[in-house]
Amino acid sequence: MNILITSGGTSEKIDQVRSITNHSTGQLGKIIAEHCLANGATVTLLTTEKAVKPAPHEQLTIRMIENTNQLLLAMRELVPAHDVLIHSMAVSDYKPIYMAGFEEVLASSDMTEFLDKSNSQSKISSADDYQVLFLKKNPKIISKVKEWNPNIRLIGFKLLVDVSQEELLTTARSSLIKNQAELIVANDLAEISSGLHHAYLVGQNTVTEAFSKEDIAEKLLDHIQKGGRL
Amino acid sequence: MNILITSGGTSEKIDQVRSITNHSTGQLGKIIAEHCLANGATVTLLTTEKAVKPAPHEQLTIRMIENTNQLLLAMRELVPAHDVLIHSMAVSDYKPIYMAGFEEVLASSDMTEFLDKSNSQSKISSADDYQVLFLKKNPKIISKVKEWNPNIRLIGFKLLVDVSQEELLTTARSSLIKNQAELIVANDLAEISSGLHHAYLVGQNTVTEAFSKEDIAEKLLDHIQKGGRL
Repeated sequence: MNILITSGGTSEKIDQVRSITNHSTGQLGKIIAEHCLANGATVTLLTTEKAVKPAPHEQLTIRMIENTNQLLLAMRELVPAHDVLIHSMAVSDYKPIYMAGFEEVLASSDMTEFLDKSNSQSKISSADDYQVLFLKKNPKIISKVKEWNPNIRLIGFKLLVDVSQEELLTTARSSLIKNQAELIVANDLAEISSGLHHAYLVGQNTVTEAFSKEDIAEKLLDHIQKGGRL
Repeated sequence: MNILITSGGTSEKIDQVRSITNHSTGQLGKIIAEHCLANGATVTLLTTEKAVKPAPHEQLTIRMIENTNQLLLAMRELVPAHDVLIHSMAVSDYKPIYMAGFEEVLASSDMTEFLDKSNSQSKISSADDYQVLFLKKNPKIISKVKEWNPNIRLIGFKLLVDVSQEELLTTARSSLIKNQAELIVANDLAEISSGLHHAYLVGQNTVTEAFSKEDIAEKLLDHIQKGGRL
C-alpha cells in the first residue's frame, strides 16, 4: 500500500528576511509514518525543513516543501500515485501580498489598490510606527485531493484552539463531508502537550477517541487496514 | 571577560497557531561563541529554540527567548553583568496587534480604531478572501544597551538585502553612531550562503572585510582582545 503523509507547517515569505509560519513540530506525522512503515506500507512523507523526520528506511521517501504553493504542486503530482493520504500538515491559510506603512494606507482613497500591489524592496523598510500587511487566502488544497485522485482514501486533520467538544466535532464533520474525506482527526491545541495528545477520529457515523500521538497513529493504522471501517 | 552573545531570530505570535519569524539559523552566533570560549572568555548565549547551539562548555550559559519583549527583559537583566555584547540576533521590527477581514477594514470610517484592538479568538477565523494584519513597531533594543550599561562594549549587526556597498556601509556607520556601538558587522543577504559570508566590520574610522563566518568570528575576537582597535 502506498501512503502519502504530510507533516510539519508551511511558511509564507513576507520578504527575504521574515515569514509567517504555521507551528507544527511534525512529531505526529513522524510517528504515523513510522507506524505505517513498521506495518509494511510504502510511505512518501511530504514535509518541511524544520519538521522532525523518521530515520531513513527502504520504503520511505521524504520530500521537502516550504510554502502552500509548493505543497499544492507536490500533492498534485503525488496524490494520483498513492492509495491513502494522511494530511497532517499545518497549512498556511493566507499568504502575504503587500506590506505598507500605516500612513500610506490611511492616505489611500481606495484600499483595494493594495490587493494588487507587491513590495519592490527585498527587505521591507521599518520606519513607520505601524505597518499594515495585506494577505490573500490560499487555495484549500484538501478540497482538490479527490479531483486529482477520486479513489484515494483521504484522512484529514482539523486543529482548533480552546473550543467545546461539540464545536470541534461539528467542524470536523463538516470538513469530512465537504472534502469527501474518510476520516477527520479533530484536535484542540489546548489538549496537546508533549506527552498528551487528545483527538477524535471522526468518520461519517463514528467517533473514536485517542489520547496520545502513538494512540492516534495506531488507531489510524487500524482504520486503514480494516479498509475504512473503524 | 564576560561576553554576552545573541543569536537566532525572534518570532512574534499572530495567534496560537502562527507567528512571524525572522530567519536566522544562529550559525554565526554559534561560531562566535565557540571562538570566545576557546580563547578563555565566559559566554552567555541568548538564543532561540530553533537556533543551532554550541556544545555544552563549562564557561557557557545558554538562555532561550522567543519574542522581542522577552529579549528586551533578558537583555535588561544581563547587559549590566557583561563586558562585551555581540548582538547578532535577527530581531523582529514589528509585532502583530490585530488581524481583520478586508471587508471589516473597508467598512471602517476610522482605521486608527484597529490599532487599539486585539483578537479575542485563539485561532483567527479564515473565512475572508483577504485579511489585513496591523503591526506595531517594537522598541529598538540595541538603542537601550548603553543606558543599561554605559561601559559595555557594544558590537551590533546590520543585515540588508541586495544593496550597494556604499548603502551598506553608510547604514552601518549611522547605526554605529546612533547606538554608541564600537563596531557594526554589516552584511548583505545576497552575499551569504552556506560556505560564504561576506561582511564588513565597520568601526568609527575603520572598515575590515571578512569572507566567512569563521573569518568574522576571528576578526571580532581580535578586535575584542585588542581592547577596541582593529
